Amino acid sequence: MAATLLSALLVEILIPVAALIGMVFALIQWFLVSRVSVGGGQASINNGYDQSLLDDEEGYDDAEAVALCAEIQNAISEGAESFLITEYQYLGIFMAVFSVFIFLFLGSVGGFSTKWVSCKANPSELCAPPLANALFSTVAFILGALTSTLSGYLGMKIATYANARTTLEARKGVGEAFIVAFRAGSVMGFLLAANGLIVLFIAIVLFKLYYGNDWTGLYESIAGYGLGGSSVALFGRVGGGIYTKAADVGADLVGKVERNIPEDDPRNPAVIADNVGDNVGDIAGMGADLFGSFAESSCAALVVSSISSFGADRDFVAMSFPLLISSAGIVVCLITTIFATDLFVIKSVKEIEPSLKRQLVISTVLMTLAIAAVCYLALPSTFTINVVGHQPKVVKNWKLFFCVGSGLWAGLIIGYTTEYFTSNAYQPVRDVADSCRTGAATNVIFGLALGYKSVIIPVLAIAVAIFLSFSLAAMYGIAVAALGMLSTLATGLAIDAYGPISDNAGGIAEMAGMPHKVRERTDALDAAGNTTAAIGKGFAIGSAALVSLALFGAFVSRAGIAVVDVIQPKEFVGLIVGAMLPYWFSAMTMKSVGKAALAMVEEVRRQFNTIPGLMEVGTLFGSSTLAGLLAGALVSGVQIAISASNTGGAWDNAKKYIEAGASDHARSLGPKGSDAHKAAVIGDTVGDPLKDTSGPSLNILIKLMAVESLVFAPFFAAHGGIFFKWLNI
Amino acid sequence: MAATLLSALLVEILIPVAALIGMVFALIQWFLVSRVSVGGGQASINNGYDQSLLDDEEGYDDAEAVALCAEIQNAISEGAESFLITEYQYLGIFMAVFSVFIFLFLGSVGGFSTKWVSCKANPSELCAPPLANALFSTVAFILGALTSTLSGYLGMKIATYANARTTLEARKGVGEAFIVAFRAGSVMGFLLAANGLIVLFIAIVLFKLYYGNDWTGLYESIAGYGLGGSSVALFGRVGGGIYTKAADVGADLVGKVERNIPEDDPRNPAVIADNVGDNVGDIAGMGADLFGSFAESSCAALVVSSISSFGADRDFVAMSFPLLISSAGIVVCLITTIFATDLFVIKSVKEIEPSLKRQLVISTVLMTLAIAAVCYLALPSTFTINVVGHQPKVVKNWKLFFCVGSGLWAGLIIGYTTEYFTSNAYQPVRDVADSCRTGAATNVIFGLALGYKSVIIPVLAIAVAIFLSFSLAAMYGIAVAALGMLSTLATGLAIDAYGPISDNAGGIAEMAGMPHKVRERTDALDAAGNTTAAIGKGFAIGSAALVSLALFGAFVSRAGIAVVDVIQPKEFVGLIVGAMLPYWFSAMTMKSVGKAALAMVEEVRRQFNTIPGLMEVGTLFGSSTLAGLLAGALVSGVQIAISASNTGGAWDNAKKYIEAGASDHARSLGPKGSDAHKAAVIGDTVGDPLKDTSGPSLNILIKLMAVESLVFAPFFAAHGGIFFKWLNI
Repeated sequence: MAATLLSALLVEILIPVAALIGMVFALIQWFLVSRVSVGGGQASINNGYDQSLLDDEEGYDDAEAVALCAEIQNAISEGAESFLITEYQYLGIFMAVFSVFIFLFLGSVGGFSTKWVSCKANPSELCAPPLANALFSTVAFILGALTSTLSGYLGMKIATYANARTTLEARKGVGEAFIVAFRAGSVMGFLLAANGLIVLFIAIVLFKLYYGNDWTGLYESIAGYGLGGSSVALFGRVGGGIYTKAADVGADLVGKVERNIPEDDPRNPAVIADNVGDNVGDIAGMGADLFGSFAESSCAALVVSSISSFGADRDFVAMSFPLLISSAGIVVCLITTIFATDLFVIKSVKEIEPSLKRQLVISTVLMTLAIAAVCYLALPSTFTINVVGHQPKVVKNWKLFFCVGSGLWAGLIIGYTTEYFTSNAYQPVRDVADSCRTGAATNVIFGLALGYKSVIIPVLAIAVAIFLSFSLAAMYGIAVAALGMLSTLATGLAIDAYGPISDNAGGIAEMAGMPHKVRERTDALDAAGNTTAAIGKGFAIGSAALVSLALFGAFVSRAGIAVVDVIQPKEFVGLIVGAMLPYWFSAMTMKSVGKAALAMVEEVRRQFNTIPGLMEVGTLFGSSTLAGLLAGALVSGVQIAISASNTGGAWDNAKKYIEAGASDHARSLGPKGSDAHKAAVIGDTVGDPLKDTSGPSLNILIKLMAVESLVFAPFFAAHGGIFFKWLNI
Repeated sequence: MAATLLSALLVEILIPVAALIGMVFALIQWFLVSRVSVGGGQASINNGYDQSLLDDEEGYDDAEAVALCAEIQNAISEGAESFLITEYQYLGIFMAVFSVFIFLFLGSVGGFSTKWVSCKANPSELCAPPLANALFSTVAFILGALTSTLSGYLGMKIATYANARTTLEARKGVGEAFIVAFRAGSVMGFLLAANGLIVLFIAIVLFKLYYGNDWTGLYESIAGYGLGGSSVALFGRVGGGIYTKAADVGADLVGKVERNIPEDDPRNPAVIADNVGDNVGDIAGMGADLFGSFAESSCAALVVSSISSFGADRDFVAMSFPLLISSAGIVVCLITTIFATDLFVIKSVKEIEPSLKRQLVISTVLMTLAIAAVCYLALPSTFTINVVGHQPKVVKNWKLFFCVGSGLWAGLIIGYTTEYFTSNAYQPVRDVADSCRTGAATNVIFGLALGYKSVIIPVLAIAVAIFLSFSLAAMYGIAVAALGMLSTLATGLAIDAYGPISDNAGGIAEMAGMPHKVRERTDALDAAGNTTAAIGKGFAIGSAALVSLALFGAFVSRAGIAVVDVIQPKEFVGLIVGAMLPYWFSAMTMKSVGKAALAMVEEVRRQFNTIPGLMEVGTLFGSSTLAGLLAGALVSGVQIAISASNTGGAWDNAKKYIEAGASDHARSLGPKGSDAHKAAVIGDTVGDPLKDTSGPSLNILIKLMAVESLVFAPFFAAHGGIFFKWLNI
């Protein structure tokens, strides 16, 4: 057993300390946001803003506008809260049923025996009974679901708390408003990263009290944490996405009926509902999605390493490598945030987008250094990773640096590519806007083609990361590459959450009748937010691809599958049917958009039911076909998800490009209401379900399929493939 | 060596006789079509038609209308011919260059040695020198290309010969017109099936004179025939498809400029060009596509069996099994055709579609019997199929019946599913039409969702066929399953070619100012043709999937790849990048539509260049990554191709549904020019490039990639993977 430079005790201190630092930092940011007062009387709110600005607009009553802001904020906050509470009620029922399901399925593996059994890998040792594994898996599942729910809820809370405050700060200047929105985003980012880490860590420490030396059982049970996170994400993403798009339909529930706002009021229900949708979809949904990725990649890495030399040597420090990477990530992101909030103060509109992009670059560069340090301190110089059916892979610690790093940098490349294809600062979106000259049909064709084309570079970046990390450290490499991409999660989420907050701020400014200059500032914040939202989606998809592959690797390891040979019938059939599933899923999510908000819950339930179609595959056709199915769904789903997301983003920004009319070219296509603009609006409307519903929920589909396979692997190994057994093939 | 019931001599007689029967039957049909005279004076043309019909329309001059028909027919025929001649010139240059390329690449394997070498499989025997393999592969390639070109050209000729004749016969009645269009389609179908078979047979017989007992070398060289067929198909499909869609742009080349037809003339160039497009795209293009599939699946079966017991035992009868299936197919299709042309005469409009669908069912049922006979007569009761790295698979002859049969019936299921999703007789298209109420955006969303959903059943049908045939007879099973689906090629093509001919007939009737009743009849023929065109596309895609897998199997057999393990880095990276390629390809083809017809040639060249990107993969990354790439492109391409084709078909028919106004529901959406109709037109325009360009050309992409890998397998085995060799992985 090679020694690590860090001691186990130090690891047990460092991880919770890092999480604590993240939480304290988040609370500080929250406190700073809360210093902007809303509706607290004239005295407290107008200190510092530029009175001359308000003099421009005749008949503008600042006190009235501020009061209106507060009222709108309340409406949005209440709407989002009531939606989430409803969603969580259904979620609660679902989670309860699914928990029982997990417990029974996994418990049935050993006939609900409570006796410790001799381990398969090392018969001289004792392993926990399957019933205990079933119980702890279920507990881990519930913990993952609760943490994800809590993080999403808190994110929504701070976002709806900060939106009007951003609007009010915009009266002082663009820099001030930017800081409020960005700080609020940071609260979400840091709370989520810290909560995810600390709950996982505590679960491991507590489970270990029972499991003792049975680390394989321990970390297999922990995998339930990832499943819990992803299950919530399906609700968050699909439910939130459909809500967002069904906003018009569901609007009367939130606004007209409940709050008696007249139809022609600036605070008309459709607009309020639209703002609510941003919070439940892009904040709570995205949070749950990325939390799921974080939890799953951590679990995948833990499962793979528990059956490798880290586990065999009971090397707690090395086992904690994934958690240490995440801990380092929190500190790196903290430093990165200070660059945006304190070191470089935004002074003009033009500085917003570069400042946000700089956050990505700074966090990536700093994280690269941190990864090197963690690899040096927390890993033995040489160790082995078990590969089923092959010789264990001997790995040197510096190789893991390249694994984690390749994921991290692939994320940056995906982010920049997404920006290129969806920002109207570049040619692709301008071409799409230009195609509106010849009508909606060419706009749709060009938009679809753009989405297809935008797949190329991200897939190549993912392929390179996969090849490198796979070659260097087998499936463990993939898992830590996914973690690498997610290591700057707090910053990524901060940038991402900034988008909807600014969007809301713009909406509130308009509804509250804020002066023209204020609205110009919030619009500029919003425009930058659109691009960062697309970057966030690209990031979410890229990490989902790596995470799914990591989970797939953990699944094959755990199911004892040595080879997934696609020139065998069982596997190939799984592959082609798996590649079909994302289309099936997309067909369902896309059309849900027309449905009323309430029908949505039914829709989520129905969609979830197709995923346990996976259970049938595993049970009827066994692990080999299931492995093919996962591979097929993964490689096909990534493409549709990226193209759908970018197509939608490009249409949205092509429309905004025409509306803004910031160049001769853009003006030649506009103004609002021109034929070209009408064509652009049609593209934007088609794009909404693509980018907000079917695209993002494909992330969840592929991750959830993989993690579900992983959790149920023992069941499939024990009872799977009955159809083939019956056919005797 | 188990004996077959047929003797080799009988086989050598039966195959050419079947081909000859097919040709003679095609010529008889052509003769029957030619009896309808066009522009040959009043006496010869109006014999038999219903004079009372023409009395309905005031001011209608029959002689003038007939003369106009002849003139329009000439315009279409000249346009199609001039386009094809241009296309073939570029094709010729390309084929010449590619021939040299093939020769040099394959010749380089053995250093251009002319010495016979001892065989790898059996060192006591002598195998032909690589230079000979290079030469014969090149010859086979040229033969395949020429046969495909000739078949496409002849198909176009008969189609443009029959279109006006169909219009003129429509004056007599719908049954008479139907027969003309259908007979013309049969000419195309039978000529293609017979030509494909006889050229392949003659090539085998002649090559055998040189190869003697080196059957492996013989059939590996024959694989060039498939590559030639598919290369032409790329030009035909992509070129034809883009031409069709660029008709408006390119119209002035064909009409206004060359023929001086004024803009407002009924024979306006856009309409003429549109009719030309149908002939070059849906006739010549589809013909080349299906010819490619036929040639490739035959070659795949031959390659696999040549290295199995058929080849080892020098069992010529069993080796000829694929050709005998195709021979039986010609006879079965002949009988099937007689059902449509002589046994059941169409009397009313309503009988058209059932009659065409009945053709599919009759040919499938009869073919099932024929397959049983061929399996019984031409196969030894037991034989073995070699599987690289595994024990040879022992196969009983009745198992092949299920392999061929599963492909055949999967084709029928795909055909019927396609009809369900694209015919406006069923709910899906009506739902899409209904969504036009709320505008173009919902129409686009519903159409895309329909396409995604329509993928499910075809993929499951293909999966079942693959699983069955793969399990029963390894890769040979897949190859003959593909052949099974294509065994009723003559009937399938007849039905398919019937569509564009009727479409043209309708166009001519309108342009020539035919009486209302005549136009109603040609419109009814056309409506049935739309559905059969969609069925044909479904068929083409389904067979492409099987063919690609068969070629993939032949490639791995030939490259000596025992396992394509997607949980290895090289393979997985191939898989995910392969799954991306169809998106890349679609992005290119979709946007080409806006381009002028001349730019199209450049576009085809550019697209072809991306496929030899495959050469780089093979050369740099080696056969394992290439195998992954093929699997990825296959499973992802099938889905996009089916969904694109059905989405486009559904939009087209949703528009027609509103225009026809045949039900209360349809009338509530119309009439022409209503908002719902405008929305439907936008959908139809978006659908055109999907269903006519990118969807169908994906068939070719996946087939061409697979056959190219197969042909270049020896090169990759000798020189491939230099990047990994350099990395020493």
